[in-house]
Amino acid sequence: MTPKIARFLAHHQPATPCLVLDIDRVEQNFRALQYALPLARIYYAVKANPAPQVLERLVGLSSYFDAASIEEVTACLDAGAAPAVISFGNTIKKASSIRKAHQRGVAMFAFDSREELEKLARYAPGARVYCRILVENEGADWPLSRKFGTTIDNARDLMVQAGDLGLDPYGLSFHVGSQQTTTHAYQVAIGKVATLFTDLTEAGIDLRMMNLGGGFPTRYRDDVPEIDQFSHAIMTAMTDHFGNALPEMVVEPGRFIVGDAGLVSAEVVLVSQRDRNDPVRWVYLDIGRFGGLAETEGESIKYRITTPHDGSSMGPVAIAGPTCDGADILYEKSNYRLPLSLTSGDRVELLSTGAYVTTYASTKFNGFAPLAEYYV
Amino acid sequence: MTPKIARFLAHHQPATPCLVLDIDRVEQNFRALQYALPLARIYYAVKANPAPQVLERLVGLSSYFDAASIEEVTACLDAGAAPAVISFGNTIKKASSIRKAHQRGVAMFAFDSREELEKLARYAPGARVYCRILVENEGADWPLSRKFGTTIDNARDLMVQAGDLGLDPYGLSFHVGSQQTTTHAYQVAIGKVATLFTDLTEAGIDLRMMNLGGGFPTRYRDDVPEIDQFSHAIMTAMTDHFGNALPEMVVEPGRFIVGDAGLVSAEVVLVSQRDRNDPVRWVYLDIGRFGGLAETEGESIKYRITTPHDGSSMGPVAIAGPTCDGADILYEKSNYRLPLSLTSGDRVELLSTGAYVTTYASTKFNGFAPLAEYYV
Repeated sequence: MTPKIARFLAHHQPATPCLVLDIDRVEQNFRALQYALPLARIYYAVKANPAPQVLERLVGLSSYFDAASIEEVTACLDAGAAPAVISFGNTIKKASSIRKAHQRGVAMFAFDSREELEKLARYAPGARVYCRILVENEGADWPLSRKFGTTIDNARDLMVQAGDLGLDPYGLSFHVGSQQTTTHAYQVAIGKVATLFTDLTEAGIDLRMMNLGGGFPTRYRDDVPEIDQFSHAIMTAMTDHFGNALPEMVVEPGRFIVGDAGLVSAEVVLVSQRDRNDPVRWVYLDIGRFGGLAETEGESIKYRITTPHDGSSMGPVAIAGPTCDGADILYEKSNYRLPLSLTSGDRVELLSTGAYVTTYASTKFNGFAPLAEYYV
Repeated sequence: MTPKIARFLAHHQPATPCLVLDIDRVEQNFRALQYALPLARIYYAVKANPAPQVLERLVGLSSYFDAASIEEVTACLDAGAAPAVISFGNTIKKASSIRKAHQRGVAMFAFDSREELEKLARYAPGARVYCRILVENEGADWPLSRKFGTTIDNARDLMVQAGDLGLDPYGLSFHVGSQQTTTHAYQVAIGKVATLFTDLTEAGIDLRMMNLGGGFPTRYRDDVPEIDQFSHAIMTAMTDHFGNALPEMVVEPGRFIVGDAGLVSAEVVLVSQRDRNDPVRWVYLDIGRFGGLAETEGESIKYRITTPHDGSSMGPVAIAGPTCDGADILYEKSNYRLPLSLTSGDRVELLSTGAYVTTYASTKFNGFAPLAEYYV
């Protein structure tokens, strides 16, 4: 919890559940990544947190932006970003969205299939395009691999076709999976994609850009490697392959930029003991999987939780949300422990919830309003 | 698709994705359940679809209502329901919500723990309360069992305590899980809970109500038993146990009332072949798990999908949503097949999506607006 967030909570005592996010921390994280990877252009993954306050601060820092939809493109433009710094990074786009983005001056688009390439040629003629390659997501707490990317062989054909269709075959991308906790994943992926990059260059395609995707982790319950370990692994792999003839490098961090900048302030609704012989208490919060904490699905992302009783005796708990949905369980198998004196009405904080929380919140599941947001 | 929905789609061609729901079908389903279980009071599970149009039609049919939150209580009152026909059925309630519901005249509350009972005694003194018993959820496509309910032993103590605390120990409840496809599940649960009911009655507690929960299925991709098979199984089990001294019976259907009354109209955004040797095409729709189809998690609920090319040659597909989230996959392992001629821009319908869809939709994940809704 940053001092600004602590002051805000103490002074305003906002109704729970709510997100409180410190915009200065966003800037610190952006600068830390810039320092660690000075040769890379940072395209902020807007989907991680599209709040105008976040986007405006990043525009002021000359960030680039990775947009997932025409609505996110518009949010970037509204925050003052120039169209030239926006990449439409979703490989799945409606024709109408491509046309609108192109009309507004967006000049770079992702794709991973023949049909998408044809849509781009028709609705964004001449645009810079980059092909997403399928790579392993081992080591990622929130893997992405099955849904996106294409094979090396397919990508080779598609990049040649891109040129034939009048598009600019600008580069290649990959994504090692979100909350990637091993530096090795980047090295393996770079080795695979860089080989294709060189093959295509030798075949006469004027490739200029390697997009390393996002995935840099935030510290949740467990420690993760520092950002300089990732940058070291990345630069080693890149120079191993390209020497000092490095292509433009792009990274698309979301979680790393906003994750630890925010916390969710929540209330304990109920503490219940299912059976007198079962030491596990069930702790129900006023936020759950359908109130924004969607990444606790499969207990993937394990948030740290602080309570007013920290330091006193602890016992095992399962933690669940407030809805009548049986799937609305945050943690049942991850050995969470919370103070024995925790009781309904207590206020708790879920730390590092600045990324991938507010926008996941359901409109009104079980009647509960979406998560309130405060940017300080 | 009902004729009214077909006419609406043909005439208005609403932008996708959207839900279109036929209110007359809601009435038909309500009457069918009333006919099948004439001795039971029907408490509509508001969370399944809380649209004012649905609630108002059901108020007109003298339905009772099962509310999951104070916001749902308010929605029922706003639709014209009397407080006396509303049950606050969530076992996890904030003290402030209990107090507000009690002030507004809601007189029946669920609980399954000592702490909740104490909150009820304090904030809804004298209220009718019923204790939820943990039962097996085998046979349910959307099971609920781990999060709710207490053991028989605990429930016995809690019902005695309820009286001691000045509350009215009114009844017992259970839930066999949502989209329950076996009638046997009700028989087993009734056997278990009815035994406790009789034990408590013999111990001097004036129990009057058995709440059989919801769970009655809607037909999705696979056939399910007819409602009269469920009612037969339920009435057999009830009369086996209670003879003709039946307690008041309560059911809490949601999906059964609204599920097949609505459909989602969606657009194909992309059809992609990952690799030339892989026969499985990936079909991306403009709605996915975070746009409302949350119950496709784990491929639990398998919606039927119709396309403009039905009747032509089919091939295997994986089906996913439009977001950049790797978890936004509807069906990858459920052997879905769609026409080979399906292409981006095609309009498709996901049938029987009237329940548990609109309210799950995220506020703006990846920038996409929540699902539009039309009631015809």
